[in-house]
Amino acid sequence: MSSIRFALAQLNPIVGDITGNSLAILEAVRDAHGRGARVIVTPELSVTGYPVEDLASSSDFIRQSEIGVAALATRIAADGFGDAIVVVGFVERATEEEFGGARAHNSLAVLSHGKVVATYAKRHLPTYSVFDEERIFVPGAGTLIMNLGGVATGFLICEDLWRDDGPVSELAEHDLDVVVVINASPFDTAKDETRFPLLHTRALEFRAPVVYVNAVGGQDDLVFDGDSAVLDAEGTVLLRAPLFTPALELIDITGTGFAGDGISLTEPSDTITPSVALDLPDIEATWNALVLGVRDYTLKNGFPSIVLGLSGGIDSAVCATIAADAIGAQRVFGVSMPSQFSSDGSKDDARALATNLGCHYDTHPIAELVEPFERELNLSGLAAENIQARARGMVLMSLSNQHGHLVLSTGNKSEVAVGYSTIYGDSVGGYAPLKDVFKTLVWDLARWRNSVATERGETPPIPENSISKPPSAELRPDQTDQDSLPPYDVLDAILEQLISRRDSIDTVISHGFERSTVERVAGLITGAEWKRRQGAIGPRISRMAFGRERRLPITMRQTPGLG
Amino acid sequence: MSSIRFALAQLNPIVGDITGNSLAILEAVRDAHGRGARVIVTPELSVTGYPVEDLASSSDFIRQSEIGVAALATRIAADGFGDAIVVVGFVERATEEEFGGARAHNSLAVLSHGKVVATYAKRHLPTYSVFDEERIFVPGAGTLIMNLGGVATGFLICEDLWRDDGPVSELAEHDLDVVVVINASPFDTAKDETRFPLLHTRALEFRAPVVYVNAVGGQDDLVFDGDSAVLDAEGTVLLRAPLFTPALELIDITGTGFAGDGISLTEPSDTITPSVALDLPDIEATWNALVLGVRDYTLKNGFPSIVLGLSGGIDSAVCATIAADAIGAQRVFGVSMPSQFSSDGSKDDARALATNLGCHYDTHPIAELVEPFERELNLSGLAAENIQARARGMVLMSLSNQHGHLVLSTGNKSEVAVGYSTIYGDSVGGYAPLKDVFKTLVWDLARWRNSVATERGETPPIPENSISKPPSAELRPDQTDQDSLPPYDVLDAILEQLISRRDSIDTVISHGFERSTVERVAGLITGAEWKRRQGAIGPRISRMAFGRERRLPITMRQTPGLG
Repeated sequence: MSSIRFALAQLNPIVGDITGNSLAILEAVRDAHGRGARVIVTPELSVTGYPVEDLASSSDFIRQSEIGVAALATRIAADGFGDAIVVVGFVERATEEEFGGARAHNSLAVLSHGKVVATYAKRHLPTYSVFDEERIFVPGAGTLIMNLGGVATGFLICEDLWRDDGPVSELAEHDLDVVVVINASPFDTAKDETRFPLLHTRALEFRAPVVYVNAVGGQDDLVFDGDSAVLDAEGTVLLRAPLFTPALELIDITGTGFAGDGISLTEPSDTITPSVALDLPDIEATWNALVLGVRDYTLKNGFPSIVLGLSGGIDSAVCATIAADAIGAQRVFGVSMPSQFSSDGSKDDARALATNLGCHYDTHPIAELVEPFERELNLSGLAAENIQARARGMVLMSLSNQHGHLVLSTGNKSEVAVGYSTIYGDSVGGYAPLKDVFKTLVWDLARWRNSVATERGETPPIPENSISKPPSAELRPDQTDQDSLPPYDVLDAILEQLISRRDSIDTVISHGFERSTVERVAGLITGAEWKRRQGAIGPRISRMAFGRERRLPITMRQTPGLG
Repeated sequence: MSSIRFALAQLNPIVGDITGNSLAILEAVRDAHGRGARVIVTPELSVTGYPVEDLASSSDFIRQSEIGVAALATRIAADGFGDAIVVVGFVERATEEEFGGARAHNSLAVLSHGKVVATYAKRHLPTYSVFDEERIFVPGAGTLIMNLGGVATGFLICEDLWRDDGPVSELAEHDLDVVVVINASPFDTAKDETRFPLLHTRALEFRAPVVYVNAVGGQDDLVFDGDSAVLDAEGTVLLRAPLFTPALELIDITGTGFAGDGISLTEPSDTITPSVALDLPDIEATWNALVLGVRDYTLKNGFPSIVLGLSGGIDSAVCATIAADAIGAQRVFGVSMPSQFSSDGSKDDARALATNLGCHYDTHPIAELVEPFERELNLSGLAAENIQARARGMVLMSLSNQHGHLVLSTGNKSEVAVGYSTIYGDSVGGYAPLKDVFKTLVWDLARWRNSVATERGETPPIPENSISKPPSAELRPDQTDQDSLPPYDVLDAILEQLISRRDSIDTVISHGFERSTVERVAGLITGAEWKRRQGAIGPRISRMAFGRERRLPITMRQTPGLG
């Protein structure tokens, strides 16, 4: 019987930044080693970041990944931690190139005493939803089981754990003391319903504890939530890392005396109690995911600040609040761009929001910017409405050009779905925080964030009027969104079925919605595909986000009955 | 010994348009049957169009595809052609849903006497380059061999033919009279080097003729070139359909007396000589691909006309000429939008181009549109340059809003690669004809198109001055592209290596390019990823087009040495 301290290093890598990611791993090793840990586990592709996409097809990148891992092993030993086992994820050259060009494995490396002592290549390559791993990776073969200081340890990488066949069933045939799973598993609001039940099931199948280490952080449209955990052999949660933040968590794992050759490890001299972080309600997890997505897109891409238009409406108010929570209000620049159709109420609400948040605030009226276009081109109707939105987009992009701000696009998922936006107008920007947030959820988030402020004794940031007034683009007199669209509760319910559940029009109608409404919405979704292709990316929080998760042609005849 | 007439129906389907595609198949059957054909072969997914992308994950779409095929079989028989064999491609429900959600096959159906008498599901699913078939399809199992009027016929679908293992090796074990391959194989300029050599090799392996039927037409960024063909058992080309146009080609195939149960077919009463279309030089094939891409994007999406800015430069001149070749000059609207930096030469060249083409021409100077922005925002430098480009974008989009034109974005691949463009400015539009055409190739195309006009006794459309003058964005006095970029022959050579060949920076330098230049270009490529994600699609003509063929993160630390 031996007891070895394991560390779960819930890290936030940057794709491609092999040097920076290696330094973060080294820092975690230093910290964990000092606290008695001798097995330090980092997430899937912790050295290269995840997802690497077509970087995995570059021979040069593969070489750098392999050199990076070797250098990291050397450095860990040189710094005096060679007596620890460090588990990292990296891109490894495959023996053979596949037809089509995949030539690398998604692998883990076990580092010890300055060397890579073992590797394991992921066998199940997810190729659905947001994942394209069969495109870029060659599947591995075999399993990896090691004696780590007397602890019989099996290894898996992410998707391997989700499939019954292959490595899961093969590891279950052995008497293991622990199964280590390294992951880069992105957040969505349905994840809770599947991740922990799966870990529970696997622990029972393995008759052994499961150490689940996930990445954390925003990477383009994906937000990794962390939520690393350890379950015992009965499926009871012994350790749970906090969500949406890097963490280093420790737990002692008992070995039952493994027969094979092993790596000697020092047992801990003290005892610890693993922490079990509380789960978050969906609404809070969603808010945190949006904040982390915005923060990491901004900081990892080197933007010093954020600029966005403040209309007085709910979408821009929620976006500004997310931005302030992400990088601090003093780095957020709100711009009011009123026209003759902007109500006094809207202008007041925009100013009140900025005051509540403590962000920068400036005003650039657009009447004089728009008028020359209207005159030169004799614009009216939709063309005239669009010019207003586009003039605002030009103002924001000019401010970005002058000051280096990241422009946030404030459109929500309901608008993006039906194309209720002006392309090159209100859609401009590098990142769209609400792209995967339906309008009804935007309201819920606003109310929730205000209530949190109240609980903390702070001023609720979002003006009550922005939440309660009827939504309007204010591009013509007395316009409201409901002149053009069904009420948002109806629209969002239809969108949820047509998009997220891929229900047919007939199925949606059978749930009590009007045929004409459902057919019109379905037509709008198809017609807006070309705009969506040119839209900014934004943080994914659902199981059917626009972008790489939902791939449809632009050129497509609407087949009746199809969502 | 029997002889059966086969028809190769090189069709141009629209994705999702099951009814329209079925009618086109029916029309081909009618025509072919009247000319004695009794086996009529259509392309891969001829009923649904290709690529269907995530439509294949919709139960409703799969059902419609299956119903569509059954209805087509019935209709063919009802119209009096039930005595013919018709081979179509369709999306077929798989017996089991895969982990991740794929639930359909990419199948072919053999129709006879009003019924689906056999199906075959594609076994090799390409998941590289522009293809995502493992995402959406379940691979098939087994082979299909049928006695069609005494002709022992084996069947394959596209990628099956390219792999040595599986169905190719299994069919090669039989004594077949012919192998029929249905395809949706998109054009690129390197295709010639691989497609016919492969067909030659396979004919020898099968010891039998190969009937290769490909789709034709533009579908978003993909252009299918047709180029359907028949090779005899020695690999000699007996028939070759014309490129870039729908066609119906006939050939008689001899059966050597197949032992199994067969479908009786009437032998032809006359003799025919198959046509062998000439191959096209690369430059002409490229031009035709661009024209077909623009034509089908415009017409399949229901646009009545095209609008684009005419700067007097080479890119807009070539785009306008492609547009005129695609849908006729009378439906093309050129707009000159001069500023104080536009030279008289440029304005003359724009006007001369429009006159040569016979397209519409209008002028909207931008000085008065830009000035209010410069004043309101105190713009200078890059921000002021961008405002000019964005004002032009607003003018074009307004004209599109007013008249329903498709806006063409005129940027070329060199610009798109390094981000030498203004997002929401010169990049606006629904389709970008030159997105996959390097600048040096734009010049070659211009010269080639002018020479064709001269040969035909027509006025060369593109003013000589647009070809010969130094390229300039004309956003500040005396600006030329080479103030910011290396000479285009150098730039394009570097881009070809870094992008198309995925060479490392060190490899490019070893070919004689300056380190500082190569590193700067590599940095520009990475930094422009966010713009490319928001750019219009355009026709793919190379083996590494931007878009679905090259998938890289936006958030990415440049690792030294990586292209």
